[in-house]
Amino acid sequence: MAETNYDLIIIGGGPAGLTAGMYASRARLNTLLVEKVVTGGQILITDWIENYPGFPEGISGPDLSDKMLEQARQFDLKFEYGEVESMALEGEVKSITVGDKVLTAKTVIIASGASPRSLNVGEEKFHGKGVSYCATCDAPFYRDKVVVAVGGGDTAVQESIYLTKFAKKVYLVHRRDELRAAKILQERALANEKIEMIWDSVVTGMDGLFGVENVGVKNIKTGEETTIAADGCFIWVGILPNTGFLGGALEMDAWNFIKTDAHMATNIPGVFAAGDVRSTPLRQIATAVGDSAIAATSAEHYLEGL
Amino acid sequence: MAETNYDLIIIGGGPAGLTAGMYASRARLNTLLVEKVVTGGQILITDWIENYPGFPEGISGPDLSDKMLEQARQFDLKFEYGEVESMALEGEVKSITVGDKVLTAKTVIIASGASPRSLNVGEEKFHGKGVSYCATCDAPFYRDKVVVAVGGGDTAVQESIYLTKFAKKVYLVHRRDELRAAKILQERALANEKIEMIWDSVVTGMDGLFGVENVGVKNIKTGEETTIAADGCFIWVGILPNTGFLGGALEMDAWNFIKTDAHMATNIPGVFAAGDVRSTPLRQIATAVGDSAIAATSAEHYLEGL
Repeated sequence: MAETNYDLIIIGGGPAGLTAGMYASRARLNTLLVEKVVTGGQILITDWIENYPGFPEGISGPDLSDKMLEQARQFDLKFEYGEVESMALEGEVKSITVGDKVLTAKTVIIASGASPRSLNVGEEKFHGKGVSYCATCDAPFYRDKVVVAVGGGDTAVQESIYLTKFAKKVYLVHRRDELRAAKILQERALANEKIEMIWDSVVTGMDGLFGVENVGVKNIKTGEETTIAADGCFIWVGILPNTGFLGGALEMDAWNFIKTDAHMATNIPGVFAAGDVRSTPLRQIATAVGDSAIAATSAEHYLEGL
Repeated sequence: MAETNYDLIIIGGGPAGLTAGMYASRARLNTLLVEKVVTGGQILITDWIENYPGFPEGISGPDLSDKMLEQARQFDLKFEYGEVESMALEGEVKSITVGDKVLTAKTVIIASGASPRSLNVGEEKFHGKGVSYCATCDAPFYRDKVVVAVGGGDTAVQESIYLTKFAKKVYLVHRRDELRAAKILQERALANEKIEMIWDSVVTGMDGLFGVENVGVKNIKTGEETTIAADGCFIWVGILPNTGFLGGALEMDAWNFIKTDAHMATNIPGVFAAGDVRSTPLRQIATAVGDSAIAATSAEHYLEGL
């Protein structure tokens, strides 16, 4: 068996990466987690999590992230902070270049996550304070409130309909004069009394003292600008997998999420994927930890077979 | 749309059922969870859980179960306690008979779990006190200890090898004079210095004051009985899905675990499966909660399409 620096290198330090790291290092694999900036991933910008099983009082994103990091550290998971510059995944020895270091391992788990596409109108300021990208996560916080939703595709329309189970009013802002979503979803949204379409329009910004209070909207045909008083803004203009650094090495779906089988194995032997970066029907902390337990166990079985 | 008692009925109250119930009721589906005896499932017999993400200090099975139950209750999940006598899953209205009640719903999630096959030598007394059915879960608790393992199939042999990463000695007790496991696993086990085979033998019982201290073993060819001083006993003589009550309604794998797609959908529209009862490469709390978040979301999408 060829010599490598590690048994396993994990790319990404969100819930998926930390869970894979905890499972693998607890199974005594010599494991390195590579994280670009700071561990935690998308949950760091999540104010309050109500639906991760085991926390009936809810938990803040940063607190849950801290707990997962502490748990992974107990089993001697190692960390390297830096950007992945390049990788060679084929063959028995996988090599990954982080900054000026070349690191090798026999197995790799990609857990680099995904990022919601931004409107670029300064909404980052309201992350966890009224701006959300996930109705499953956050819709129940908007019971009897007014929200603005942005987008026109399947997700935007489906999630806007879902929002009406909670919110008393949903303004759906779309830059065109018709929706892209499936016909049946369009019909349902247009028939829903709680949904008001704001056609040909874009969100220009938002303000508020402690959270979102007003959302600025501009009609791109007439140039008219208006302000909608709203308690939240749900943005569904796309979600981008963090797979750019892979340079097409792995098989992807149409949206560039990594395809895996039920063992979380990719098309390259010894390379696995877990969490939001994977082609999957749902992106939640609960699904990320499930994926990652499987990916780490699959990596362990793969190593046993070498 | 036909009238039913519930939008969704969940069968089973372990981590999978409780998570599906929490997700579904939080999404405002009118949801009933049916549990035979008491919520919690297999984790109730789990003394200490180190690898469920979010609990760096570890947590006892009953405590985690309580937390999951409390979390599900917050969102108005309803409960019915009793045995499922029969079910009719085909068609738009699913009906489930619990005791003398006939309950109807538009969707069903099967989360009835699985049970390790018992040796029937009174090992229940040592559940969570030295008797384990899961090396991934419990092997790290046996660092530098002596353990007895039971079985001769792939799982028993693979997990015994895994145990040697931690334990200083593994006695593998098997009732025949050769292993059933794949050749490559056999070779590795037999070459492993820490594994000692106890052929033609069965475990007859175990004793100890606070946990397992001695394991009784009998050679079924010679009738000779011996006692092995050991700190734990891992039993791998099969895992049985709790699918008997389904009466063959759903498509199963060769071991009678329910087959699903990535959306946790079974072969019957509107019927989903999650957790240990599912045909899946790994059975952990982490995977149960991942499955269940997906199953509940899939049920919700299915209902939206009715």
